[in-house]
Amino acid sequence: MSIQHLPLAPELAVSDWFNTPSPITLEGLRGKVVYLHSFQLLCPGCVAESLPQVKRIERLFANTDLKVIGLHTVFEHHAAMTPVTLKAFIHEYRLTSPIGVDQAGDGDVPVTMARYGLRGTPSSVLIGRDGTILHHAFGVEDDMAVGARIAMALAQPVPAAAGEVSDGNCADGRCALPGTEA
Amino acid sequence: MSIQHLPLAPELAVSDWFNTPSPITLEGLRGKVVYLHSFQLLCPGCVAESLPQVKRIERLFANTDLKVIGLHTVFEHHAAMTPVTLKAFIHEYRLTSPIGVDQAGDGDVPVTMARYGLRGTPSSVLIGRDGTILHHAFGVEDDMAVGARIAMALAQPVPAAAGEVSDGNCADGRCALPGTEA
Amino acid sequence: MSIQHLPLAPELAVSDWFNTPSPITLEGLRGKVVYLHSFQLLCPGCVAESLPQVKRIERLFANTDLKVIGLHTVFEHHAAMTPVTLKAFIHEYRLTSPIGVDQAGDGDVPVTMARYGLRGTPSSVLIGRDGTILHHAFGVEDDMAVGARIAMALAQPVPAAAGEVSDGNCADGRCALPGTEA
Amino acid sequence: MSIQHLPLAPELAVSDWFNTPSPITLEGLRGKVVYLHSFQLLCPGCVAESLPQVKRIERLFANTDLKVIGLHTVFEHHAAMTPVTLKAFIHEYRLTSPIGVDQAGDGDVPVTMARYGLRGTPSSVLIGRDGTILHHAFGVEDDMAVGARIAMALAQPVPAAAGEVSDGNCADGRCALPGTEA
Repeated sequence: MSIQHLPLAPELAVSDWFNTPSPITLEGLRGKVVYLHSFQLLCPGCVAESLPQVKRIERLFANTDLKVIGLHTVFEHHAAMTPVTLKAFIHEYRLTSPIGVDQAGDGDVPVTMARYGLRGTPSSVLIGRDGTILHHAFGVEDDMAVGARIAMALAQPVPAAAGEVSDGNCADGRCALPGTEA
Repeated sequence: MSIQHLPLAPELAVSDWFNTPSPITLEGLRGKVVYLHSFQLLCPGCVAESLPQVKRIERLFANTDLKVIGLHTVFEHHAAMTPVTLKAFIHEYRLTSPIGVDQAGDGDVPVTMARYGLRGTPSSVLIGRDGTILHHAFGVEDDMAVGARIAMALAQPVPAAAGEVSDGNCADGRCALPGTEA
Repeated sequence: MSIQHLPLAPELAVSDWFNTPSPITLEGLRGKVVYLHSFQLLCPGCVAESLPQVKRIERLFANTDLKVIGLHTVFEHHAAMTPVTLKAFIHEYRLTSPIGVDQAGDGDVPVTMARYGLRGTPSSVLIGRDGTILHHAFGVEDDMAVGARIAMALAQPVPAAAGEVSDGNCADGRCALPGTEA
Repeated sequence: MSIQHLPLAPELAVSDWFNTPSPITLEGLRGKVVYLHSFQLLCPGCVAESLPQVKRIERLFANTDLKVIGLHTVFEHHAAMTPVTLKAFIHEYRLTSPIGVDQAGDGDVPVTMARYGLRGTPSSVLIGRDGTILHHAFGVEDDMAVGARIAMALAQPVPAAAGEVSDGNCADGRCALPGTEA
């Protein structure tokens, strides 16, 4: 049984994907560090600050296995921010990382946004190699802090994948069942 | 006959107005200085630079008779930038000056944009008290230059309105017919 | 007798000049608009904000008769900001307009600074063509406002110089004695 | 014998210290990460960019064992940048980390600057817990990269100090002589 101190990041619920040939799941990315940023195309702070920062993140960590994923979490003005408008937005702002449209929920708040309990946009979630939430933020944080935090996450060792025979689980003279010790 | 060195600003062709109780015409604003700024809601330079500059213009010249007017000149991604999306955009970006939707033309370029020969967005046109185009720019110019140019335009004397009896047309010992001498 | 609503700018008291072949007096500049900026080389706000703004002023108004003059008004750390250090500072920061060292006074505050009643650095004083103080500011103002204010000052007519025979004083069918009507 | 792939950081040669009760040596800081920044008080890029960045570094890593040290490496205008002027500069710019005056050398370039082969100011050197140079830069790098790099350095394990009895040198069932295995 895995000893989990940090909460496991809930899976994404996405109705449309852009900039990726096939749908993406967090489960499929286990072992990598994921920077998930939630935005709305009519959110001034997202356009002015968080999306440019995401580009700086992509550039700085281009040679690492960091995976940057955008999530269009529309919780207001739904008729104004359709996938048609999002597609043109992605084109005009030259966004190149995968971006998913958060699946519509029962009320105004979409499904993934609710699962993560995000308070608004922009928000970001840093997910560690073991799939746990290392940090989440509402609003934009300083570049230096963001860079430091991602670097720390990348410095964590890659956990042994479930079902894979690995010496990584053997330590201190004993071997654990796969996936039970991070 | 009016001696006109600068070109007269063509009239606006607008299909929808926001932030004004009734449609606006340049003719109705004759005597005032007009700062006309053309933008698209998915234009990165407009959102990041020209619209914030327009707000600084509005604030600095709040106590003058400068009239600031926005023009949503969509020439691409028409389906992505509808009046519904524009309305939410105006709300989210807290734009308070009158904004008109440039009337659709035969091709992609809307009517007013074609009349002025604008090359893209953001563009701005400074119109003098006599209705002539004092300056037009494609892209964003430095704040200092913009402030200086508007101040110079405001410093020009208000021309006598047509049909109004005014001593202003009498100078150098002779009186001209109203509207014939700027 | 001149009708003077605004206070006349006091003359400069300068012990050392840089970037000028001969000493400068405000009296000698009468007829021009003067932008006088007061700074100290160890003043963080001067270095970060006002001196870069002065460069933008110089660039924008290069083709006008605006005269930009710097004044090194040391009122603290006198031993740390000597003319030797100022000279290297001017070189390193590539300042090209004339800069005067405000003459030492009886106490810490130098003579010109005291005459103008400046409250600290950076300060700026805008002097009109007639030698009056049009505006003074402690701290840095927005570029747009600065540009507008200088443009307004430049738009004022050049007053007839005292002792000079000029038609400029003749208007409305009468001629005034030189210098009596701005 | 320690296997050393990266060059060991040369010791500092300092003639005057500010912001520290006693002189500092890199040797005395072994085990900590050191961020050494070289500047001149009349260097525009230092004042505008690197010193503000140093403050952001100090703030972000305040709760770590990162040691930030400034080095006043005057290689020109020596008469203009004396310790008297530096002291006032430190006061006015509210610099709080220890700052050393790089010891005068035979020519214009001071001793420590020459030892490190610094090409100019601003420069920075990141020194790892084991005293090796992890990174050095001439000019200012992006905040995000700086934050990531320092975080990586902090994530390195603290090496066992020479002469100290430590279990840290015992691993894998064997104990090494102090200082022989990083």
